[in-house]
Amino acid sequence: MVYIGLDLGGTKISGALFSESCTILLQETLLLEGREGKAVAGLIFTLCDKLIELGSIKADDEKSIGICVPGIAYSKTGNVWAPNIPGWENFPLREELKKRFPHSLVSIESDRTCSILGETNQGVSRGYKNVVFVAVGTGIGAGILIDGRILHGASDIFGAIGWMALQPPYSNDYDQCGCFETYASGTGIALQAKNLLKTFPQYKGQLSQFPFDQLTAHDVFDALKSKDPVATQVINKAIEMWGMASANLVSLFNPEMVVFGGGIFGPAAVLVDRIYMEAQKWAQPIAIKQCKFAASELPNLAGLYGAGAISILNSQNNLTDH
Amino acid sequence: MVYIGLDLGGTKISGALFSESCTILLQETLLLEGREGKAVAGLIFTLCDKLIELGSIKADDEKSIGICVPGIAYSKTGNVWAPNIPGWENFPLREELKKRFPHSLVSIESDRTCSILGETNQGVSRGYKNVVFVAVGTGIGAGILIDGRILHGASDIFGAIGWMALQPPYSNDYDQCGCFETYASGTGIALQAKNLLKTFPQYKGQLSQFPFDQLTAHDVFDALKSKDPVATQVINKAIEMWGMASANLVSLFNPEMVVFGGGIFGPAAVLVDRIYMEAQKWAQPIAIKQCKFAASELPNLAGLYGAGAISILNSQNNLTDH
Repeated sequence: MVYIGLDLGGTKISGALFSESCTILLQETLLLEGREGKAVAGLIFTLCDKLIELGSIKADDEKSIGICVPGIAYSKTGNVWAPNIPGWENFPLREELKKRFPHSLVSIESDRTCSILGETNQGVSRGYKNVVFVAVGTGIGAGILIDGRILHGASDIFGAIGWMALQPPYSNDYDQCGCFETYASGTGIALQAKNLLKTFPQYKGQLSQFPFDQLTAHDVFDALKSKDPVATQVINKAIEMWGMASANLVSLFNPEMVVFGGGIFGPAAVLVDRIYMEAQKWAQPIAIKQCKFAASELPNLAGLYGAGAISILNSQNNLTDH
Repeated sequence: MVYIGLDLGGTKISGALFSESCTILLQETLLLEGREGKAVAGLIFTLCDKLIELGSIKADDEKSIGICVPGIAYSKTGNVWAPNIPGWENFPLREELKKRFPHSLVSIESDRTCSILGETNQGVSRGYKNVVFVAVGTGIGAGILIDGRILHGASDIFGAIGWMALQPPYSNDYDQCGCFETYASGTGIALQAKNLLKTFPQYKGQLSQFPFDQLTAHDVFDALKSKDPVATQVINKAIEMWGMASANLVSLFNPEMVVFGGGIFGPAAVLVDRIYMEAQKWAQPIAIKQCKFAASELPNLAGLYGAGAISILNSQNNLTDH
């Protein structure tokens, strides 16, 4: 069996041939360069062909292809919703791949699911069977591995923790993205900083140097280094929310580890100990003692390793894609 | 295969023989009458013997025994922690049953897990594969069925949602039982009513008729019927908390149904629509549209049906207890 893992991002697609123990044998990357709809599938075919050629793989060798997608992978249909790729509102990715590579197994999972598989195969949570991956970027989502299995739910909208209810009463601020994201996603951190600046006209600190509308979470983290009061207040609130949310994941799932990743961890990776201290107050006391918190060890490769891991896992489980 | 389901409570044990389609063929109940430790296991043997005799089952017929226990069933050891049964801090129930019935399969699950299996086999969530059971009694816990499987976690402390963090900042009131329980368990509802009465000396309503220390959640529900202001305020807060907590379960698990059970639902069953309305504000919008909320249809039998269901399920999956 030949194992191919592909990680589709908003601007590029990385691919690799994997050994049965999930190490990378060879790796290639192609740029999307504005491609949309079917042309993105075409680029996936090109990358597969290139890997097959470089790996001197025969046309009739059995292949298991795992793909990490930036959005939702619908497990029943094999279709994909990827908000950053035009024309991928409900793209029939599995069908397209099965047409092009008819004798192959095709497995498609969301980026947060692949991240947890990547970390559990080659990263910080290696060897654990119960792990939650908290992905904090523009939004917040979770990948969840319990009893060694990936969870999907009724319609693959699983782990939508950005909507976690943490701060009553309900506010209309939560309408767009949910309560947790409003305080603690990249977008939320920038929003809270802007809201605070509006009520703080005498402020002349670092964050007033940016054009107000362009203020980002990364500017807030930069300002935090010099103990800027606005940045400190916003990040303290985010730590409370990350702590409460991960406490809830610990009480619910009784995992061995919570892994924090995504663009914000990154700069927030140094805060993981403070998040654990906050979570320790709230969580089921035995479950939190049994659980470690850690930042991702594979910030750029977790998705690709996860894609490799599902290609191996599904082939071993003898799962077909029908 | 002979299927035996047993539901161990704090005061009695119910048992039944089940058909392969999980209907009850015959049923018996014995009272614990203060038994402790090994004597409770002895009563379980007596009940099994009685069912075997009544069912005219031969000694060498293969048996699959499922047991619902009021506490935590440790899946690796087969031991049980049951706080209301003296001597069952870590009782080796599976080992004892295997000694007494050596040729049988033995499956032990917590009451919240059995409740969800019971409801999904014979109750309100019949046929669904993704269901969360919210058990609200003295405390609060959840049984979780996802992708048709029961979840356990690293050490079977799964679904400890009584500890859900919902109301920051952290208060020492939450130390003992967690934030969600402090507002919305049976104990929590009584506590909130007492706290409110302390700040409300001019109150002369229905709740002032009870000896203060003996006030229970059921008294609060009784007072709610006559629109008592203290009861109304306490239950409104509990509805907000039940709504937020179940919204979090919906966003996380993307279930087809959330089932409310335990002693409080019961009197709170009429509030399920209001809980759904609160949850609708907070939850991931697509996931909440796909999810129904309902009260248990088997308030007294869910555990027993669930015990029957695991005896059948584990026998069909050809799972052994080793």
